Amino acid sequence: MHGRNPGRVGGSAGIGTEENAAAGGDRSAVTVIGLGAMGAALANAFLDSGRPTTVWNRSPEKADGLVAEGAVRAATATEAVSASPLVVVCVLDYRAVHDVLGPAGAALSGRVLVNLTNGTPEQARRTAAWAAERGADYLDGGIMAVPPMIGSPESVLLYSGSADAFEAHRRTLEILGTGRHLGADAGLAPLHDLAMLTGAYGMFAGFLQAVAMVGTERAEVAEFTSSLLVPWLNAMTTELPRLAERVDTGDHATDVGSNLAMQAAAFPNLVDAAGAQGVDAGLLAPVRALLDRGVAEGHGAEELSSLVELLRKPAPA
Amino acid sequence: MHGRNPGRVGGSAGIGTEENAAAGGDRSAVTVIGLGAMGAALANAFLDSGRPTTVWNRSPEKADGLVAEGAVRAATATEAVSASPLVVVCVLDYRAVHDVLGPAGAALSGRVLVNLTNGTPEQARRTAAWAAERGADYLDGGIMAVPPMIGSPESVLLYSGSADAFEAHRRTLEILGTGRHLGADAGLAPLHDLAMLTGAYGMFAGFLQAVAMVGTERAEVAEFTSSLLVPWLNAMTTELPRLAERVDTGDHATDVGSNLAMQAAAFPNLVDAAGAQGVDAGLLAPVRALLDRGVAEGHGAEELSSLVELLRKPAPA
Ligand SMILES: NC(=O)c1ccc[n+]([C@@H]2O[C@H](COP(=O)([O-])OP(=O)(O)OC[C@H]3O[C@@H](n4cnc5c(N)ncnc54)[C@H](OP(=O)(O)O)[C@@H]3O)[C@@H](O)[C@H]2O)c1
Ligand SMILES: NC(=O)c1ccc[n+]([C@@H]2O[C@H](COP(=O)([O-])OP(=O)(O)OC[C@H]3O[C@@H](n4cnc5c(N)ncnc54)[C@H](OP(=O)(O)O)[C@@H]3O)[C@@H](O)[C@H]2O)c1
Repeated sequence: MHGRNPGRVGGSAGIGTEENAAAGGDRSAVTVIGLGAMGAALANAFLDSGRPTTVWNRSPEKADGLVAEGAVRAATATEAVSASPLVVVCVLDYRAVHDVLGPAGAALSGRVLVNLTNGTPEQARRTAAWAAERGADYLDGGIMAVPPMIGSPESVLLYSGSADAFEAHRRTLEILGTGRHLGADAGLAPLHDLAMLTGAYGMFAGFLQAVAMVGTERAEVAEFTSSLLVPWLNAMTTELPRLAERVDTGDHATDVGSNLAMQAAAFPNLVDAAGAQGVDAGLLAPVRALLDRGVAEGHGAEELSSLVELLRKPAPA
Repeated sequence: MHGRNPGRVGGSAGIGTEENAAAGGDRSAVTVIGLGAMGAALANAFLDSGRPTTVWNRSPEKADGLVAEGAVRAATATEAVSASPLVVVCVLDYRAVHDVLGPAGAALSGRVLVNLTNGTPEQARRTAAWAAERGADYLDGGIMAVPPMIGSPESVLLYSGSADAFEAHRRTLEILGTGRHLGADAGLAPLHDLAMLTGAYGMFAGFLQAVAMVGTERAEVAEFTSSLLVPWLNAMTTELPRLAERVDTGDHATDVGSNLAMQAAAFPNLVDAAGAQGVDAGLLAPVRALLDRGVAEGHGAEELSSLVELLRKPAPA
């Protein structure tokens, strides 16, 4: 079924046990609550590695495929929480987290709750406090992967909150991908997650508009994307650490790079060309405004990095 | 000096000749007009490979370093054009191209003009016609590189216009980077260039906002950028060909991917978290609006690729 890990060893949690033990895995049980695209991928990865895996989803039919592969179906969220020392929740948003876990709160005592639902640092901190009141250790997490990547080392998961919980369950959590614990403040993983998503959404927006532009000239855009756009974006990501260093030092001067005045002069060409192709160029309108503001405020001879400072409003008093 | 190619063989155009010839290079002369950050990098690369290189720039002092390295300084743009069969121009914009080449137009007859200045497809087509009237062969080009990349194969240059001119000067042009001729319509290189820049500006916008967000929590953002953001963006670029295929097929359904409803639910978290850090999240505001529009128009169960169709206005009648 979906996103199946090619390295899967056994067909269900009940078989392949010795092979898994020999490979250095332990066998501690895990519960996954929420079986959307991402939750199902997480549960699949645990099953693939031979962990006893209990699952629960609001719409129960989403568990069927996992149960056929060896997962245990819990009848209620409370039963799911009670089944394992490690409880992973991955639902749509924090409202859903509290809808699901609210009634199961008492069962959390003495367990580790790992919440991989996307949310804000503030939501994570409040949920950490809520879990602590119920005697649970809490880790907030951000999944830097799409579901088919889960179970491979390119899948990165950011964690924050209890360092003890992270160390105790590290081996289990690393079944999902590379784990990075960012600190005790539960808000740190979501902050970094959201910053990284911000970076990705910028890139996706650029992709959507680029493809819309060339798609009017080409029968298909897949070849443009793989042979031209992706290598170019990969080349441009290598520029980012250099720009980030300029943000750190505050020295944005350029002599041989790409100055803002030049960039602001070229930017209208993107907009005009999109318009000429019948494509709405509005996705990048605020980028153009920011470039123009940078030049107007005297940064025309500087690099793009100088614009970061314009995005930082004065801190609230 | 700037962006010096590590593979440089001779200190000036006058030495290292045999070595270059042995390496299969020819020695045909080239002129570079415009010695800003990019023009200087182009002239440097030609010099590095041992080509007799004539240079001209509106502000003459920008030629000094190149002349010290063996370039020939032309006193006027007309003299520069007359010096070589291949004339490369790279100035700020097309207004500058015509300011510079207008008076030198008659000298262009029988030569190849390669215009690497950023512009729209329409501007390229008009300039191709202008050059044809003056008896010149014309190539329009888009430089997919920043100046320090010039002279390496990762630097990609898109060309369109005269295929004969491209073939005749291919070896010289490939000194600058990998050359791709996209077709006889001079507008094709700028169209693809601008689409690729659109993609890059999306990514840069995401980077700027991401760095502004984490920069409020971290003393420095270089480590965030190189250890977290760049690997993540590189992982996400590998998703783009798959999304582009969906654009081509028109099938945007997702079962195990990332559905728009989920993405629209998470997006406000980016904005809230940026705001809580005192960072203006306006750069991605149109992306949020587009996601919301996608969901409102019934694409909530589809992938991001379905948004491309919303960017395409009805074609003008
Ligand atoms: N997919 C990705 O690419 C990706 C990547 C990184 C992070 N994430 C994050 O992972 C989380 C899950 O994403 P997904 O892709 O799995 O989304 P999805 O496929 O849309 O699934 C949503 C899940 O949330 C459940 N849910 C929603 N509202 C609920 C409520 N009020 N009470 C109980 N359950 C509720 C759904 O249950 P029903 O089945 O009953 O509707 C379903 O299990 C999100 O926070 C997302 O931001 C996703
Ligand atoms: N730098 C990059 O990363 C990059 C990458 C790809 C493409 N490009 C494109 O390459 C072109 C040049 O960029 P750049 O980075 O070299 O810009 P730059 O460093 O700002 O240099 C601008 C050049 O244009 C000349 N110029 C401007 N207006 C002129 C006029 N009216 N008449 C004559 N000359 C004029 C300048 O001459 P003065 O010295 O006399 O002012 C200078 O040589 C642009 O179209 C840019 O979009 C740049």
